Amino acid sequence: MMDTGSIPTPFVANVILSSISSLILFYIIPEFKDMFINAGLFGIDMNKVGNRHSNRENKSISQDLVKPKLPEAQGVLSGAVYLIVVFVFIPFRFPFLDHLNSEHNFPHHEFVDYLAALLSMCCMLFLGFADDVLNLKWRHKLWLPTMASLPLLMVYYINFGHTLIIVPKPFRELLGTSVDLGILYYLYMGMMAVFCTNAINILAGVNGLEAGQTLVIACSVMFFNVYQLMYGNTQTEAHLFSLYLIIPYIAVTVPLLYYNWCPARAFVGDTFCYFSGMAFAVISILGHFSKTMLLFFVPQIINFLYSAPQIFHILPCPRHRLPSVNRETGLLEMSKMKTKSSDIGRLGWVVINVLSPLGLLSVEELQEKGDKYIQFNNMTIINLAIKFCGPIYERNLSLVLLFIQVLCSVLALVIRLHVAKYFYDE
Amino acid sequence: MMDTGSIPTPFVANVILSSISSLILFYIIPEFKDMFINAGLFGIDMNKVGNRHSNRENKSISQDLVKPKLPEAQGVLSGAVYLIVVFVFIPFRFPFLDHLNSEHNFPHHEFVDYLAALLSMCCMLFLGFADDVLNLKWRHKLWLPTMASLPLLMVYYINFGHTLIIVPKPFRELLGTSVDLGILYYLYMGMMAVFCTNAINILAGVNGLEAGQTLVIACSVMFFNVYQLMYGNTQTEAHLFSLYLIIPYIAVTVPLLYYNWCPARAFVGDTFCYFSGMAFAVISILGHFSKTMLLFFVPQIINFLYSAPQIFHILPCPRHRLPSVNRETGLLEMSKMKTKSSDIGRLGWVVINVLSPLGLLSVEELQEKGDKYIQFNNMTIINLAIKFCGPIYERNLSLVLLFIQVLCSVLALVIRLHVAKYFYDE
Repeated sequence: MMDTGSIPTPFVANVILSSISSLILFYIIPEFKDMFINAGLFGIDMNKVGNRHSNRENKSISQDLVKPKLPEAQGVLSGAVYLIVVFVFIPFRFPFLDHLNSEHNFPHHEFVDYLAALLSMCCMLFLGFADDVLNLKWRHKLWLPTMASLPLLMVYYINFGHTLIIVPKPFRELLGTSVDLGILYYLYMGMMAVFCTNAINILAGVNGLEAGQTLVIACSVMFFNVYQLMYGNTQTEAHLFSLYLIIPYIAVTVPLLYYNWCPARAFVGDTFCYFSGMAFAVISILGHFSKTMLLFFVPQIINFLYSAPQIFHILPCPRHRLPSVNRETGLLEMSKMKTKSSDIGRLGWVVINVLSPLGLLSVEELQEKGDKYIQFNNMTIINLAIKFCGPIYERNLSLVLLFIQVLCSVLALVIRLHVAKYFYDE
Repeated sequence: MMDTGSIPTPFVANVILSSISSLILFYIIPEFKDMFINAGLFGIDMNKVGNRHSNRENKSISQDLVKPKLPEAQGVLSGAVYLIVVFVFIPFRFPFLDHLNSEHNFPHHEFVDYLAALLSMCCMLFLGFADDVLNLKWRHKLWLPTMASLPLLMVYYINFGHTLIIVPKPFRELLGTSVDLGILYYLYMGMMAVFCTNAINILAGVNGLEAGQTLVIACSVMFFNVYQLMYGNTQTEAHLFSLYLIIPYIAVTVPLLYYNWCPARAFVGDTFCYFSGMAFAVISILGHFSKTMLLFFVPQIINFLYSAPQIFHILPCPRHRLPSVNRETGLLEMSKMKTKSSDIGRLGWVVINVLSPLGLLSVEELQEKGDKYIQFNNMTIINLAIKFCGPIYERNLSLVLLFIQVLCSVLALVIRLHVAKYFYDE
């Protein structure tokens, strides 16, 4: 437990550096807008009705063309500024002079962890940006987080090499107090990186949602670390490690969310989703709370499970599964997939027949030109939220989804801080 | 001195990994061509005559448009593959199991150095690529190497913190055996990074020259390290450190040079120049031979000094200073800058009056419509080489310039290995 009365110098430095980075980003994100658009890095804000006025004047332009054109991948600015902050923070975190005469007390392991974390994040930022620029194919995309997590895995191997996990109390009679997962542990870490990056990337497409959800997760992590530092008994160093990386993350995400909030003036890009996912993966692995991190990812996990039938082509999947905007009302409605009934396989029918009665899937049967068609909502929790709330403004939809994220975080913290002690020795 | 009979396992692993990376790059560089061009990452090969045939058929297309259109910034592939190789090499270089029972023998300093080197290179690769994509302004460009060298400087501060330099023998009576440069040493390191990156970037524009010059420098570094390991007495670890980073560099540069060689099928991009410059800077700083590295950069230094009057606007400078291609002969000729005599300042005349009699500047005076004009060749060693050789095919020009680079490297090695001992104790 830390002395709650004393605030360590590195903490103060971290907060000051982070605040400066926030201010800088508020200034530079709009500054770089034209540079991104000129470089071909822009996207169309699909959920907007579009500018009818200019459409009427120039009939040859399709409706899509007059929807807002926004700079894409601006999350790369947040990522770059983040890296500068955590670089500059090094001498504050590891004050060399304190260890000048006592070489053996220098926290080599922590320093190496810190560098490995930055290396993985820097790699992911680079690869994410390359993806945004080059529009890599799916088979390349899955490799990116794996490649970027290499430094983490290698350093973990060198630095700890121990792959023991503590077994929860109820299972100890069966498995003993701890189990050495060996190579499986590395697989787990690699999968953690792949999962975190992609989980954020598929819960996206509504203004403010990408940056909003990562901000909620990051704040939960910060709260968890501060709570553990103040009231916990163990692993002070690990929680400080994590805290010093998450505060700058929050600082660079706030300006991005500000500009990405509905109506968006910037898109965050895959870059930001990848970078954020990798940040959460390395912070939780090296901070020794990767299971807790998964609790904060519950909405993303539910979204992934709910999406699975479409992702794995058990049910047909369109290229985009964003909600669709109603041009008359300006409200977002569920986007739907229409397909011939005969094209749905046996497993597909199982999914439909299970989810539909539970109210988790909106299904309609249609008859067109003698063919039977079936139409169901695209399976994302974004569409599911619209199913429960009815047609909704984009800003409100984002708020609903972020509210769910906050609720899950509160629940996760309660579970982690009060229920977990029945399963593990604190 | 190493036992010359024994080849260490990490060395074997390094060579094998590097060879594999080379083969992969030979395959993927052309594979990615369309993806780069579709992403707007392409350049026009200015030194080619252009395709007259299609020009005759379609008169509305300007001459430039039918010059070859090549994917730009493909050096990013080399950089990414390089990083993967050096990541995967970590467990070979720092075999964790050897140190399991003797924690204190683990080479923490070296491991930290290694990670810091990779971090700086990864950063530079990311920022270089961002520059190629976003076409950053000059004021941003100068910041990039500075930002990317931050991890290096910070880690150097933590890990060594000593900024002593050994004074050459002739000056010892004046200054003592060593001088503590303090903050100046960090400035020196930062400037080394800025210099190396930009020096390569301004000696560019001829097929094969960018990748060719860095390959010659890298091979010189490799030779120097191997020589010191076999016949030197000191700093075995530092030379191994450097060797293990330069071999993969050579491996990823060879395929790039192959595709960039005249007639080029790919451009390397600023990405590659920045990445290479940073690689040389970190390898030489952490390998403790940054002064020797500067000897290998003599052609770049001469090019910088010769370019200085135009770069610092003592004489007028056009946007591009590439040689110009003669459409009739297909040979490259000096590109020239024409300006009113009255526009040249006093300092400009000094430069002209000094260089012209030495045969280092081709100057013509012209009379047009009553105005006096002066025309001189753009001041790069590329144009200077053409001045001495006469009009020349692009491939031969590249060979001449690379031959000069090799010659300078040989001279540098002789100076470093035989003359330096009179100034320093070995």
